[in-house]
Amino acid sequence: MHRLSIDLGNRGYPILVGRGLLDDPAVLAAAVPARDVLVVTNVTVGPLYLDRLVRGLAGKRVASVALPDGEQYKTLAHLERLFDALVAARMNRDACVVALGGGVVGDMAGFAAACYQRGVDFVQVPTTLLAQVDSSVGGKTGVNHPGGKNLIGAFHQPRAVISDIGTLSTLPARELRAGLAEVIKYGLIADASFLGWIEAHVEALLALDGSALEHAVRRSCELKAEIVAEDEREHGRRALLNLGHTFGHAIETATGYGEWLHGEAVAAGMLMAADFSRRLGWLGATDVERVRRLLERTGLPTRAPAIGASRALELMAMDKKVQAGRVRLVLLPRLGEATVSGDYPAELLSAALVEHFGAAA
Amino acid sequence: MHRLSIDLGNRGYPILVGRGLLDDPAVLAAAVPARDVLVVTNVTVGPLYLDRLVRGLAGKRVASVALPDGEQYKTLAHLERLFDALVAARMNRDACVVALGGGVVGDMAGFAAACYQRGVDFVQVPTTLLAQVDSSVGGKTGVNHPGGKNLIGAFHQPRAVISDIGTLSTLPARELRAGLAEVIKYGLIADASFLGWIEAHVEALLALDGSALEHAVRRSCELKAEIVAEDEREHGRRALLNLGHTFGHAIETATGYGEWLHGEAVAAGMLMAADFSRRLGWLGATDVERVRRLLERTGLPTRAPAIGASRALELMAMDKKVQAGRVRLVLLPRLGEATVSGDYPAELLSAALVEHFGAAA
Repeated sequence: MHRLSIDLGNRGYPILVGRGLLDDPAVLAAAVPARDVLVVTNVTVGPLYLDRLVRGLAGKRVASVALPDGEQYKTLAHLERLFDALVAARMNRDACVVALGGGVVGDMAGFAAACYQRGVDFVQVPTTLLAQVDSSVGGKTGVNHPGGKNLIGAFHQPRAVISDIGTLSTLPARELRAGLAEVIKYGLIADASFLGWIEAHVEALLALDGSALEHAVRRSCELKAEIVAEDEREHGRRALLNLGHTFGHAIETATGYGEWLHGEAVAAGMLMAADFSRRLGWLGATDVERVRRLLERTGLPTRAPAIGASRALELMAMDKKVQAGRVRLVLLPRLGEATVSGDYPAELLSAALVEHFGAAA
Repeated sequence: MHRLSIDLGNRGYPILVGRGLLDDPAVLAAAVPARDVLVVTNVTVGPLYLDRLVRGLAGKRVASVALPDGEQYKTLAHLERLFDALVAARMNRDACVVALGGGVVGDMAGFAAACYQRGVDFVQVPTTLLAQVDSSVGGKTGVNHPGGKNLIGAFHQPRAVISDIGTLSTLPARELRAGLAEVIKYGLIADASFLGWIEAHVEALLALDGSALEHAVRRSCELKAEIVAEDEREHGRRALLNLGHTFGHAIETATGYGEWLHGEAVAAGMLMAADFSRRLGWLGATDVERVRRLLERTGLPTRAPAIGASRALELMAMDKKVQAGRVRLVLLPRLGEATVSGDYPAELLSAALVEHFGAAA
């Protein structure tokens, strides 16, 4: 088992990465000191792992609730179900919410924990690669609004993240690939040698090779932990974690949540960010091809849907990174290094959007 | 104009108390630096004061939304309308939400600001006495759940509180009295000489005497500011502000939100807390009579509805102040001093609840 730490003073917490952690009583007892626990899961993950987790929590008062499975249920209406479950189970301020599932479960359980009685503890037990490398770490929680992704939420750090690599064996191949998009992101924004490692191990990762997955999760969490510790509330460097996300959010919102997986939209968005970086004279054409090739080998989409450039720009303008009316984009000065910029010719962005999203819907 | 400060480091802010502040461009420009503003009000207060406030915000991009009027609308469903309004007005992370109205408007606008894009600025412009002396100060925001009051919310401090005493001239008499319940509360928990001042000025306050109201608002805010600065997140002394609230929440929840005004339920609850303090041998019978007499002169209810002791206890057990299964109550060792305690004979509480709420529903 690897143990990393997120260094946030009295809100710091451990990230545990290993196999068989899900029902390890000692691991769970240390991570969940509360006596009263509500486990939030979904109808896909619950049947696979809920019983094991509950057995590992022996001695506590445990209730559970299962959400429907999918990004389209990440709404205020479904969040209300979690509040209903907390009230029905008579959970008080000293209770703990445990999220067992992927990013949607973690985001919703964390947001419910942030708001219930104005804040109770929560613990992440991510069971998808995407959640293990990204969404479970860093304290961003929330739900979607028809007007944009994650528009409603809170910063609420977990008390611990328990990433059991064993749960990835039941992950559908499409979701594994979507999770690898975020792994590739870390290489692109912060670590060129990790990018090279991923290129050398794509096949092993897709074949669920245990030690390759463990390294990918651990290194991704290390890189994310460093960035989050520097900038918990995204006033600065943390925004780099959104490489491809502004373009990607436009894809997700325009096509309806659930049609494209988040990681798929991010993959197409990262290629757009790389291409736009080339148009600004930062990356070379061979760099962009290298990104495209890696995404293709991973089985990820590299082509945005034809939603039209003007609709795409409108959706991007709702993104949280807009400041003073200007869309700020995460761009790549070189592979392994990223920067946030709103300082580019608007007509260059328009031209890129027309090429990627089409001229009209 | 009086200017107080809440001392919370980089989350500190001013409380301005005076007449004609609502449309004072200089006051508003200092309090609301944002360019984009969403004013949240309700259908009662909006027609009276929205135009004046908007004129005072000249030069900014201002949108507004009016909620229905009443505690029964302080729900997640109505909160969603505020998110819809923020999205429709294309508000970004640098926008500011301004709450124009009473406690319900302030709690909901503040919670929406806490969650929208994971947190935008907000400013309180309270127009009821209750909101001016209590709910607008201290950063507690949220909505009710059928299972309990304010069960869903966030701590989110405003950037400024602008209390225009002039707005109290349009306040219905019943709401004025309900606000005075909280003013009396400050005397009871923290300042015996202020309690004496209130006893000497009840008639002036009920007659809307300007300088009496200004003193009451200012002194109440001073006392609250001290307590909040010491204990922003209610781990300790801040709980004293809930004198009468645990009993009162049971009344509000059992009778349905909106039937009893919050201040009315708090009044009846404070008398119960005083009576229970007497049963514990802390207050004398004359102290309790003094509290009863002041509440009666103010025109506030001193008798709880007959919801039954067991239902009352059940509702009190959902209160956020429960720790390790024990209902902690704010009690009065003497008038002008309060303490929180869960350390009392359970049968003594049962007997008091039977007397106040009746044996059965």
